[in-house]
Amino acid sequence: MGSFQGHALPGSFFLIVAQWWAVKYSLWYATRRKKSASAGRLATRTTQRCLEVIEGAAILSFSIIGMLAEQFAAGGPKLRLYDYTEHHWEQLNNWQHATMYLFFALSGATTLTVHTTEFAPLALDRLLLAIAFFAEGFLFLYHLYGRDMLDVHVHQLLLYAIFGGALISFMEVFHRGNILLELLRTTLCLLQGSWFWQIGFVLYPPSEVKWDLQDHSNKMFITVCYCWHLACALVTVAVLYCTVCCVIRTKLKRIPPMEMGLLKPREREGESEDEVL
Amino acid sequence: MGSFQGHALPGSFFLIVAQWWAVKYSLWYATRRKKSASAGRLATRTTQRCLEVIEGAAILSFSIIGMLAEQFAAGGPKLRLYDYTEHHWEQLNNWQHATMYLFFALSGATTLTVHTTEFAPLALDRLLLAIAFFAEGFLFLYHLYGRDMLDVHVHQLLLYAIFGGALISFMEVFHRGNILLELLRTTLCLLQGSWFWQIGFVLYPPSEVKWDLQDHSNKMFITVCYCWHLACALVTVAVLYCTVCCVIRTKLKRIPPMEMGLLKPREREGESEDEVL
Amino acid sequence: MGSFQGHALPGSFFLIVAQWWAVKYSLWYATRRKKSASAGRLATRTTQRCLEVIEGAAILSFSIIGMLAEQFAAGGPKLRLYDYTEHHWEQLNNWQHATMYLFFALSGATTLTVHTTEFAPLALDRLLLAIAFFAEGFLFLYHLYGRDMLDVHVHQLLLYAIFGGALISFMEVFHRGNILLELLRTTLCLLQGSWFWQIGFVLYPPSEVKWDLQDHSNKMFITVCYCWHLACALVTVAVLYCTVCCVIRTKLKRIPPMEMGLLKPREREGESEDEVL
Amino acid sequence: MGSFQGHALPGSFFLIVAQWWAVKYSLWYATRRKKSASAGRLATRTTQRCLEVIEGAAILSFSIIGMLAEQFAAGGPKLRLYDYTEHHWEQLNNWQHATMYLFFALSGATTLTVHTTEFAPLALDRLLLAIAFFAEGFLFLYHLYGRDMLDVHVHQLLLYAIFGGALISFMEVFHRGNILLELLRTTLCLLQGSWFWQIGFVLYPPSEVKWDLQDHSNKMFITVCYCWHLACALVTVAVLYCTVCCVIRTKLKRIPPMEMGLLKPREREGESEDEVL
Repeated sequence: MGSFQGHALPGSFFLIVAQWWAVKYSLWYATRRKKSASAGRLATRTTQRCLEVIEGAAILSFSIIGMLAEQFAAGGPKLRLYDYTEHHWEQLNNWQHATMYLFFALSGATTLTVHTTEFAPLALDRLLLAIAFFAEGFLFLYHLYGRDMLDVHVHQLLLYAIFGGALISFMEVFHRGNILLELLRTTLCLLQGSWFWQIGFVLYPPSEVKWDLQDHSNKMFITVCYCWHLACALVTVAVLYCTVCCVIRTKLKRIPPMEMGLLKPREREGESEDEVL
Repeated sequence: MGSFQGHALPGSFFLIVAQWWAVKYSLWYATRRKKSASAGRLATRTTQRCLEVIEGAAILSFSIIGMLAEQFAAGGPKLRLYDYTEHHWEQLNNWQHATMYLFFALSGATTLTVHTTEFAPLALDRLLLAIAFFAEGFLFLYHLYGRDMLDVHVHQLLLYAIFGGALISFMEVFHRGNILLELLRTTLCLLQGSWFWQIGFVLYPPSEVKWDLQDHSNKMFITVCYCWHLACALVTVAVLYCTVCCVIRTKLKRIPPMEMGLLKPREREGESEDEVL
Repeated sequence: MGSFQGHALPGSFFLIVAQWWAVKYSLWYATRRKKSASAGRLATRTTQRCLEVIEGAAILSFSIIGMLAEQFAAGGPKLRLYDYTEHHWEQLNNWQHATMYLFFALSGATTLTVHTTEFAPLALDRLLLAIAFFAEGFLFLYHLYGRDMLDVHVHQLLLYAIFGGALISFMEVFHRGNILLELLRTTLCLLQGSWFWQIGFVLYPPSEVKWDLQDHSNKMFITVCYCWHLACALVTVAVLYCTVCCVIRTKLKRIPPMEMGLLKPREREGESEDEVL
Repeated sequence: MGSFQGHALPGSFFLIVAQWWAVKYSLWYATRRKKSASAGRLATRTTQRCLEVIEGAAILSFSIIGMLAEQFAAGGPKLRLYDYTEHHWEQLNNWQHATMYLFFALSGATTLTVHTTEFAPLALDRLLLAIAFFAEGFLFLYHLYGRDMLDVHVHQLLLYAIFGGALISFMEVFHRGNILLELLRTTLCLLQGSWFWQIGFVLYPPSEVKWDLQDHSNKMFITVCYCWHLACALVTVAVLYCTVCCVIRTKLKRIPPMEMGLLKPREREGESEDEVL
């Protein structure tokens, strides 16, 4: 991954996933709050399950492609782990990245299983997502030996987004369907994606001017820059959320809502999907 | 901000906000426990919402003023980020402080949105407040390179108050309306405000006697001093709380309370505002 | 406190408090589970409140005595903070210890207020206890500069017990009356007390043989020794708990229990005192 | 324990315990969800209690054997703590390992007590398990002084599994019977067991080729390898879980289920055993 493309690719992946999540969770939250006719709700339930299955399948297949690319692309270790003739490990970086993909593949496979069969408890998908984020951060943590100061710093900043995502996913095991946690995870995923791009631009700038990787004022600027990425991620998620809410509102205005005998307080129902899913 | 005024200004801001919070939360808690007539309660609800909107607008406007001051005041970068002639970043300190204000502006805007529209979940304001505190602490954390020992130490002590405030705000997302968490956040905010003043006095003393920034016994004294600030903050919040409770009690004695069919246990009702707001 | 007595005194204090807590919480848990006649329960409630008030008053007075002793005992600073003639701080160690006592005094005063008036929310006493433990640990944390390796190590081990106690007290704000948290806090308090004695024996041994404060095998032994203290604390709390349970059981066998219409599951009722207090 | 056998033995112990746990918790979860006739449920309850007692007795006896082996096996300290003639501690490593076994013995004894008598609250067994894991990790943490880089690294990686297990056990005090936490703890225990074997192979390889304990690329490979162990542990637990679920499903198909008046939502009942145990 020691190239601009090597950082742009996972960055794009996380950006796409995060935007998809922002739309998905906003949509579900908006439809849950509107509580249209129960027929509609049942339809939603099947649709939800279907979307989850597609999401799981997509993550699983992308991860498998990623693993294969790391192994068999030009310069990959081609499943050889140790070079016995020259006594050194084969391309440990590629093996490391393949391992990261492996955990996301496990997470995708779990999402598939949870939503197609009745076997497993529902919250298992979030647990495996948390483990996948954790393993990614864990491998990055021991990845930084002997690099330049700024190189280490940009990767350390990345770790905040990764471990933050792992923590929020783990909390979702206990607070499943809490829209705030879902959107916070989405924000951190978006931050991770855009920061991957930023790392690419810092370490492998397309222009000829290189960054001084030992300059302390560069480090200070990068820290401020990370906060701007976070602010942009927050604003992006907010804009997507509002757009989805407005669209749902205008669409549902045309359908007259069913009468309901018992209305629960607004917040409660809005923040849990257990009753729906 | 490398001046006495630069520390006194945010200090005063946090002191005012914290005292306002102490009064506000005590008032709501006292009125909730008294449970006067439901007409009165409805009135309270509208007043609450109105106060929240004013608070959000105040924080938003102060933050925008702060951002503009950091950019356009004497010596500010005037929105220029990089000096291409001399190849260095423009006034990174000002950019850093403007970024801190930016996150408080986002938090204020969120409070405004949450309490004027029906769009967003209620706890979003606490989440954004937590993120604002976190970003402030995060920027301070990477702000201390190459300074004197005592300078680093006073800022590190500040971080306890900031990250403590971020943590408590995040816990309020799940325990909204818990009076203890609200008052603890208030205390930490008060501590932060008074500590900003203390930092000003230590680093830029108005008298001629300067502090020895390398002396270890000064560091030990400052640590003890921080605990006294914490104790003073606790006592201040307690005094404000008791004053508000007494005033409410004497005022409500004149109004005869309505009969209520079902009385829930005291603690439960007292520690959640979900049913009121 | 740089003496054997200076460590033995707080050690004894924590040992006494912890044993008192072990008896108190076991007693309440046992009587709650037995659910004798409601008249008896009401009596218990008044007794509980009375015991809490006595406990608060005892902690408050001991803390005030401690503060006065630190200030006015032989060699104390006698409320003078700075020596202007020789330009150094007066007896910072004594000021530090007086500050620790100050926070326990605040905690005791809060317990008194919470249980004598109706003003404050019940869980406030645990919050202030958590803050008192935290402040104690915080001051110890910045207390260790320039000491010998073993001296630093024994105080660091003490910090585990102190911060553990602070954390458990803070959790009790949300899980008030959970017998397991109460006994765990008791265990950590007992550990703290016995470890203070151990520190006294290590740093100021009564025999003539001194410990080598730079020897690494001493450090390893001390770590193992700390675990034995923890095991002893666990066993002590278990023995006290079982004794109290047995005594209550034999006493209550003589009184015929009242009939009860609705019996809730065993665990639930046993682990919360909200309904009782 | 400075030998291959010394790491293989505890490794095997943890592997066996973890597989037993995986089967046990899957079995209970599957039977809980199936909700066969209430007579069958009562039978299950007695069986569960019986299995717990056996488990507690097994852990207790293995731990006592371990303690005795550490003390009286060839080269053990034979209960002597200090060698007064040569002025050094006797075999601190053995004392350390015996202390670890001591805490697991306490945990086993607690499980026995909790499930044979009515004295103690149910969640006490998880609390003592958490303390046992914590003490194990705590002793390992101060065990690494002056070793080679790779030696320190493999033990640090072990600490993740140990402290992770302690944290999950502590969370189970509050979320008892949550299948996800139980399986996660099982996974971490399995990881710990297989990693003990791996440490044995790295530090005391059976072949003649030794590992270079100072080589950084070995450290990187070991980190990746740790993630593979985690992935294998996850897959093993998943396979055991699915096998048990399939077996239960085919067995219960033959017994017609009883009619039930009130069916609660699937997730809720499935994730708590409070009502069963």
